[in-house]
Amino acid sequence: MAQNAPDRTPSASLAHFITTSRWEDVPQNVRHEAKRSLLNFFATALGGCRDEAIELAVDTLSSFSGPREAAIIGRSERADPLTAAFLNAASANVFDFDDTHVPTIIHPTAPIAPALFALGARRQISGRDLLHAFVLGVEAECRIGNSVSPSHYRRGWHITATCGVFGAAAAAAKILNLDARRTLWALGNAAAQSAGLIETLGSMAKSIGVGNAARNGLVAALLAEKGFRGPERPIEGPRGFAAVMSDKADLSRITDGLGTSWELLRNTYKPYPCGVVLNPVVDACLDLHRRLDLPPARIRRIVVAGPPLLRERTDRPDAATGREAQVSAQHTVAVVLLGGAAGIAQYTDAAVRDPAVEELRRKVVIEDDVALPMGAARVTIEAADGSVITAHVTEARGSLERPTTDAELEQKLISLAEYGCPGLETGPLIDALWSIERSDDVRQVAEMAAKRSSLP
Amino acid sequence: MAQNAPDRTPSASLAHFITTSRWEDVPQNVRHEAKRSLLNFFATALGGCRDEAIELAVDTLSSFSGPREAAIIGRSERADPLTAAFLNAASANVFDFDDTHVPTIIHPTAPIAPALFALGARRQISGRDLLHAFVLGVEAECRIGNSVSPSHYRRGWHITATCGVFGAAAAAAKILNLDARRTLWALGNAAAQSAGLIETLGSMAKSIGVGNAARNGLVAALLAEKGFRGPERPIEGPRGFAAVMSDKADLSRITDGLGTSWELLRNTYKPYPCGVVLNPVVDACLDLHRRLDLPPARIRRIVVAGPPLLRERTDRPDAATGREAQVSAQHTVAVVLLGGAAGIAQYTDAAVRDPAVEELRRKVVIEDDVALPMGAARVTIEAADGSVITAHVTEARGSLERPTTDAELEQKLISLAEYGCPGLETGPLIDALWSIERSDDVRQVAEMAAKRSSLP
Repeated sequence: MAQNAPDRTPSASLAHFITTSRWEDVPQNVRHEAKRSLLNFFATALGGCRDEAIELAVDTLSSFSGPREAAIIGRSERADPLTAAFLNAASANVFDFDDTHVPTIIHPTAPIAPALFALGARRQISGRDLLHAFVLGVEAECRIGNSVSPSHYRRGWHITATCGVFGAAAAAAKILNLDARRTLWALGNAAAQSAGLIETLGSMAKSIGVGNAARNGLVAALLAEKGFRGPERPIEGPRGFAAVMSDKADLSRITDGLGTSWELLRNTYKPYPCGVVLNPVVDACLDLHRRLDLPPARIRRIVVAGPPLLRERTDRPDAATGREAQVSAQHTVAVVLLGGAAGIAQYTDAAVRDPAVEELRRKVVIEDDVALPMGAARVTIEAADGSVITAHVTEARGSLERPTTDAELEQKLISLAEYGCPGLETGPLIDALWSIERSDDVRQVAEMAAKRSSLP
Repeated sequence: MAQNAPDRTPSASLAHFITTSRWEDVPQNVRHEAKRSLLNFFATALGGCRDEAIELAVDTLSSFSGPREAAIIGRSERADPLTAAFLNAASANVFDFDDTHVPTIIHPTAPIAPALFALGARRQISGRDLLHAFVLGVEAECRIGNSVSPSHYRRGWHITATCGVFGAAAAAAKILNLDARRTLWALGNAAAQSAGLIETLGSMAKSIGVGNAARNGLVAALLAEKGFRGPERPIEGPRGFAAVMSDKADLSRITDGLGTSWELLRNTYKPYPCGVVLNPVVDACLDLHRRLDLPPARIRRIVVAGPPLLRERTDRPDAATGREAQVSAQHTVAVVLLGGAAGIAQYTDAAVRDPAVEELRRKVVIEDDVALPMGAARVTIEAADGSVITAHVTEARGSLERPTTDAELEQKLISLAEYGCPGLETGPLIDALWSIERSDDVRQVAEMAAKRSSLP
């Protein structure tokens, strides 16, 4: 294909591809996956929009906001598009309940979708154009991520933030209809802003990285539109993104199969707001909850068996906060067995301090079973009377092999809206998202996800 | 000293130092150096404020600006404090004519001063408090820079941007009177935003990195003020700034001598807007211009001798733009010999295309002389008639050994204001800067450096 012309650098090839891509070139299944990603995005942003980190960010940034054109998902305030892009990205990612691109563990949508809806608050953007730009943004973001994986994340980079800024810039460049040269500058202006350390995970500062990815990617493209010139080789240059921010890069992964193989098809949607390695444990415990006919007091021991990585990542018997509990097998087993659910409510600070949960989680032990593959788990309940009941999960819900269904995504949006934005009418929003390619003006979609402004 | 308590991490020690530092603890020579840095800052921002990169950034960001409270140096527009911090930092650094912290080659003032003056547009800040916060910001920025030098820059990080965000955050935290815990969060919120690649140098995108350092450092501190929590070990954590963004760090350099040894005393101010290695060449050519009594046509050859690094960095006979000319020995020699000056006007695109300059620069050859130390140069003019005239410089103007004088800094401000903001009354601004510690409200100082708003 033309975009793989040998005389083009990977950055220039990517820019050329973004510029020349036509909606007709995007296969039907990719278009549908884009809508699933957007549904999941609104779900998690609605769930996250009242988190303390978001409240504090709204409080801090509001007084610096320009024209209040853009919706803040789940809230009644409005903000200028750049500020809205920051806040909506932070909301969508704050619980780590958003989507996951399996090869890179990038959360692809949080940095991109908010940039596009923010731009849509100022310029009329059709749903089709938004979907198309979104698909291309995910290609840029995840292909750049592929090219530096796994050394980039291993070195300590929060890949959602560091690669997200490229995705937002690429998507915004498409919506702005930039030519290949300006699209390359947009990528270069994004490279100047690629940031976000793993050290920030577990603190509110994580949300700054993700919020900035959306905001700054949008700024990168808006500057390029005006003629603001970035470096010519932002990714592959000797002091560019790949050389500086990874220890080993394979730049062919940026361009190989461009236009025929779509990264969006490797996207997954978490059914539960906990670490993804815990998904099979949750599935097993939901199954056990249905089958169990035993008061918790008569449980003697609960054995969680899995590949060693499961224990290494989630053996946290003393999780003290909701955020720690998201990566605690002990908490997860106890709270799911008791309540039969694994939603945001199961991972609050209050849920962690629930005496019944505290008592049950002390009975959980984690054992390695090297015969179990990644993504599998076995949970066994041993009763005081010696009886045993076991659930074995080989493919967790939400994996590429057993994808979250469209109906489950709708339910996720409904329940997260109930949590973060009670009273919001979710039906019209869900309908609007499934039919977004027929919308003339995506501003209406974003507004459906916001509370009516308290201003006249 | 208490801040070096062994149980404190380097980040916590730094935060404790910033919080407990008193104005009385800052020696007189450090206070005076802070004023020199501010004078140089206003000079270079006035010179840079009409650069194309700044025009385009103003044009792009204006429509997103919140309340237009803050001055943009040299211009009539106003912007919200965050946007003004970005623009003023970018202006001050755009020509690389700003100050240089010798051990790290950080340009220390561009990220810090704009954040403080921007904050001063919203809250009343005294000149004394601003100077004090500025000094502490430089300590944080340059000590963090020291701790990761030289591997950080060598890896490809634009150290002014990556460390500048910490300086701006630290300085803003001091002005906001944050306690040690919140100052640590400010540093953590800054770590989430540390960015800027060497690959962007030579393109406009360099200015995004430096502008963001000021803006985002300010955001980091404002968030921390509200209680927005950053990571506890932003610098020294296993996935923190030092581990991820350098290949070898010496964290003791953050705390050793804190409060007794001041990084600001290692700051220098460029007398010329070219690469710092060219400074002795300029000095030599200015000397030769005064002594030379020969029409250029009768010059046969000009030999520049220096340590090999001089040739490696500046042997650019074909510089095509003003920006390239800043690191071209050939252009520098020609333009200075012809005009007897080395200001912004000598490094424009037009100056590069001047036929007389083009002709003369073809006569320049560069030779290594390993006997010459770093910072020295010898320029020899060979005339057609066989006569020879030589200038030999061992310590260039603007070095730590031969610092730019207060009077030269005043002259630099006057001539850069003439270039970038003709008509500005520079006398009152210079007086206000030398006496800034007696100002009740630094907003007045910033306004003196802006054009009167065209709005009523």
